[in-house]
Amino acid sequence: MSQSGQIRVALAQINPTVGDLKKNADLVSKHAFDAANAGAVIVVYPEMILTGYPVEDLANRASFREASIAAVSELATRINNEGNGDLTLLVGYLGQTQGGKPQNCVAVIYRGEIVATYIKHHLPNYGVFDEYRNFTPGAHSLVIRVCGVDIGIAICEDIWQSGGPVAELAKRDIGLLLVPNGSPYEINKNDARLILVKQRAIEVGAPLAYVNMTGGQDDLVFDGDTIVVSSSGELIARAPQFEDGLMVIDLDVKLASSDPDLIISAAPTLKYKKIVPGVARRLGDLEQIWQGLVIGLRDYVGKNNFKSVILGISGGIDSALVAALAADAIGADKVHGIALPSKYSSEHSLSDAKELASNIGLNYRIIQITPMVANLIENLRVDGLAEENLQARVRGLTLMALSNQEGHLVLATGNKSELAVGYSTMYGDAVGGFAPIKDLYKTQVWQLATWRNELAMLQGQTPPIPENSIKKEPSAELAPNQKDSDSLPEYKLLDQILSIYIDEDGGRAAALAAGFDPLLVDKVVGLVDRAEYKRRQYPPGTKISARAFGKDRRLPITSHWRES
Amino acid sequence: MSQSGQIRVALAQINPTVGDLKKNADLVSKHAFDAANAGAVIVVYPEMILTGYPVEDLANRASFREASIAAVSELATRINNEGNGDLTLLVGYLGQTQGGKPQNCVAVIYRGEIVATYIKHHLPNYGVFDEYRNFTPGAHSLVIRVCGVDIGIAICEDIWQSGGPVAELAKRDIGLLLVPNGSPYEINKNDARLILVKQRAIEVGAPLAYVNMTGGQDDLVFDGDTIVVSSSGELIARAPQFEDGLMVIDLDVKLASSDPDLIISAAPTLKYKKIVPGVARRLGDLEQIWQGLVIGLRDYVGKNNFKSVILGISGGIDSALVAALAADAIGADKVHGIALPSKYSSEHSLSDAKELASNIGLNYRIIQITPMVANLIENLRVDGLAEENLQARVRGLTLMALSNQEGHLVLATGNKSELAVGYSTMYGDAVGGFAPIKDLYKTQVWQLATWRNELAMLQGQTPPIPENSIKKEPSAELAPNQKDSDSLPEYKLLDQILSIYIDEDGGRAAALAAGFDPLLVDKVVGLVDRAEYKRRQYPPGTKISARAFGKDRRLPITSHWRES
Repeated sequence: MSQSGQIRVALAQINPTVGDLKKNADLVSKHAFDAANAGAVIVVYPEMILTGYPVEDLANRASFREASIAAVSELATRINNEGNGDLTLLVGYLGQTQGGKPQNCVAVIYRGEIVATYIKHHLPNYGVFDEYRNFTPGAHSLVIRVCGVDIGIAICEDIWQSGGPVAELAKRDIGLLLVPNGSPYEINKNDARLILVKQRAIEVGAPLAYVNMTGGQDDLVFDGDTIVVSSSGELIARAPQFEDGLMVIDLDVKLASSDPDLIISAAPTLKYKKIVPGVARRLGDLEQIWQGLVIGLRDYVGKNNFKSVILGISGGIDSALVAALAADAIGADKVHGIALPSKYSSEHSLSDAKELASNIGLNYRIIQITPMVANLIENLRVDGLAEENLQARVRGLTLMALSNQEGHLVLATGNKSELAVGYSTMYGDAVGGFAPIKDLYKTQVWQLATWRNELAMLQGQTPPIPENSIKKEPSAELAPNQKDSDSLPEYKLLDQILSIYIDEDGGRAAALAAGFDPLLVDKVVGLVDRAEYKRRQYPPGTKISARAFGKDRRLPITSHWRES
Repeated sequence: MSQSGQIRVALAQINPTVGDLKKNADLVSKHAFDAANAGAVIVVYPEMILTGYPVEDLANRASFREASIAAVSELATRINNEGNGDLTLLVGYLGQTQGGKPQNCVAVIYRGEIVATYIKHHLPNYGVFDEYRNFTPGAHSLVIRVCGVDIGIAICEDIWQSGGPVAELAKRDIGLLLVPNGSPYEINKNDARLILVKQRAIEVGAPLAYVNMTGGQDDLVFDGDTIVVSSSGELIARAPQFEDGLMVIDLDVKLASSDPDLIISAAPTLKYKKIVPGVARRLGDLEQIWQGLVIGLRDYVGKNNFKSVILGISGGIDSALVAALAADAIGADKVHGIALPSKYSSEHSLSDAKELASNIGLNYRIIQITPMVANLIENLRVDGLAEENLQARVRGLTLMALSNQEGHLVLATGNKSELAVGYSTMYGDAVGGFAPIKDLYKTQVWQLATWRNELAMLQGQTPPIPENSIKKEPSAELAPNQKDSDSLPEYKLLDQILSIYIDEDGGRAAALAAGFDPLLVDKVVGLVDRAEYKRRQYPPGTKISARAFGKDRRLPITSHWRES
């Protein structure tokens, strides 16, 4: 029977930037300082903290691998020079095999040296992940002894699949399992992480600390959600979602219980009063989505060095929601809302847009597109659908002209429902560098708008989104008295069928089995099947669902497969 | 010592359409008829002929898998009903495991039944391939006895990697190895297929027939290049590249030499006078590229149900080359070239565009953009770069308006050099549904133009591309006296550095080692690093190089990695 002891661990829930080795090293150093200051003996960072995550095909660049490997050595020296050499650091980085093949690694840093390396074994290659493409797997588990505690390491997917290093660690009788992660946020995960973490802790018979990153990276957003459970799978501590921070925690552990690969320090920590940070409140579903969208947008703007955003505000619900998100993300003073009325715009379009601008306090301008459209039609002599699209394209062209002139990032305001069925104009309303709500169905847009307004009222603030924008019937206003319902089924029905067909990868039969009208199903499925090309032209936007458009759906453009 | 015999094999080098199960089944049936008529006892089709290839994430749709599995059964019945039941068919399709996981399969069809199935073992997951994502590998080799010959089957990547089914077959002493493929065309492959095919034939000690598909699928184009080698690795027959056809060949084989998994027919064919179709002439490098681009464009237009194309013709070399390609692909009468002069266009822009149109015989129109641009500038009050881009966007908007009005597919005319460094306008000259030359460097554009003109002269036809378009200095003509060389290095140097940085994945150091000026390298590398977002917005275009933009380069948009 092994002795029991105590160890103080620091878990850094932080936000790296892909490719910015210097900035990421600074972030590691800062949190090493704080961890050492708090009396921790070991600090764990998220997966590939030094390079950022995911690096995708940057992994295939030898120069990038070499820079990453050099950076982790420099970091080891630096931490020591900064006086924190006695702290053990688990720092994720991009390494390589002797033959130069990329690997997803964790360096164990101690007293200025990389004393051991663990290489990720299970590589995810589904959904948004391409790790089989980018990495060569590791083959061995690693156990290090720190302050008399035998610590195993696993990286992210290593705990999602059975077998491999965790199964090995279960036999090695470790005292603690530390797991760096790059796990993107997804709605309705049903707390799968917590369930899994508990299961693995019980499997290895040791406490488990799961450390995840925060922040946005293109389509992905990371919510943190750092978790610590006991060896019996009891939840001990959990960090707030979507917030950066350093969790310091004292854990009860077995001492010197295994045959470690490396002994860093053998003497156990003396027992002292334990720090246990507790379990942060979980956010509600809509609050989670809102935070995810805000952070995804904020980081896309910030990490791409934009200072401000511009968008067309039509008086409709989509642009109103995007404006509210943008104001929460980067501040209303950096949001430019442009009303772009045409001869088909109804009166409330302009009054609702103005009310939105006033509620939020964003920069507001009106640019009449009618004279520009009239001139173009006179020169090009087009009508019908070509004329409808032309209006949307003049709006896109106007926003891009202002972006070029003034330096704003253009936000596209399309939602997942219209994107799915192709109800948008290429080079028109699809114009933009980022599409914040491209992964929200229309019904979710309404829900979030209502939720955000209620939040404002609870906080004694002006609700950002005009009531009329929420309540009025959706219209593209590209032709006289046009309504979305002229072309599309009711959104409530449409979104349910889309959810079966897209999120659940169900076919026509699945939609029929769910009780939907065959004609309706055929219409929706036909529209979705034909819209793949348009979807490929959409800018990135934060992914919040199991199957977003973009990285996690790779369909042929030229496909004659039809469900119906 | 086994007896020797003879077998007549048919190899169908044909062009399926992804998702069109009915059309592909018709194609299989037609070639089964021809094969039986020619006295063949077995016919081999390209990889996944029944579904088309690559199906990408369609593999994840249960409804598609079920339709594929039903279609292969129906096909077996149909072939029998059509009187060709005694012919053995190797038909690739999408199958699944008992648990419903997708697999890349070949059905062995005989007398109306699927008598055996082979499942692809080695799955490529690099470059344009994502098969680890889409398929579950098979574990076993398969040997069938047909007319007394023991025939092994391998699918595409199975022969590119060592070990697995081919290594097993080498021990099973087979008489013939048949290999269905979906192998995309790539320039400068140095005839890797032939080298490999010879090596595997020697390894298994049997003749090998390699059957590849033809035709375009989004970014990919398949060149056929069906190859037959003897057991000693001697080249016996080779089909013409880029042409559909059925190769029928008699092969000398060992008889009844192994322990097959299945005996379809034991009695050897009587020996008769052998058919040996011979080795088709290999196309020259530029001819190969031209054919690849023509077929990629033709199939993108045809398989997406367009009848005609439209493009802006500027008098410059890029649009001239695209117009010539389009005419070769679908006929000049279906090509609409629009000259879109502005106040910055030089005189030769219009005269060169007119000459091009006249040489090719395409539909030609002039639309002055000056009044539209003037009106927009008056309304939007922008200048500088915003004004330059606005002109390009009016051109894009004009082409899209005509596309919507008249139904043409818009072709984007950007080349790989400008795409790489971001020297193009989003929603401007990048507008289009297909970008035929997006994978050609500017220096290759010139080479191909010269080559195509010389070909015309050899054939006694009018060279399509005006000499002045080839010779004049490149200019975007978006500002007074603007030249590409104001912003970019000389193309001859630029393309060499791009080739190192993109095609070879070399870093700054590699470019310096090749002797390029450090300031020049830093400039080029910096431009490429910043242009990733723009490249993601480009439409598909036929891939001809090792590393094109698109599927085979997946880089983060938000990346702070800088070589310099």
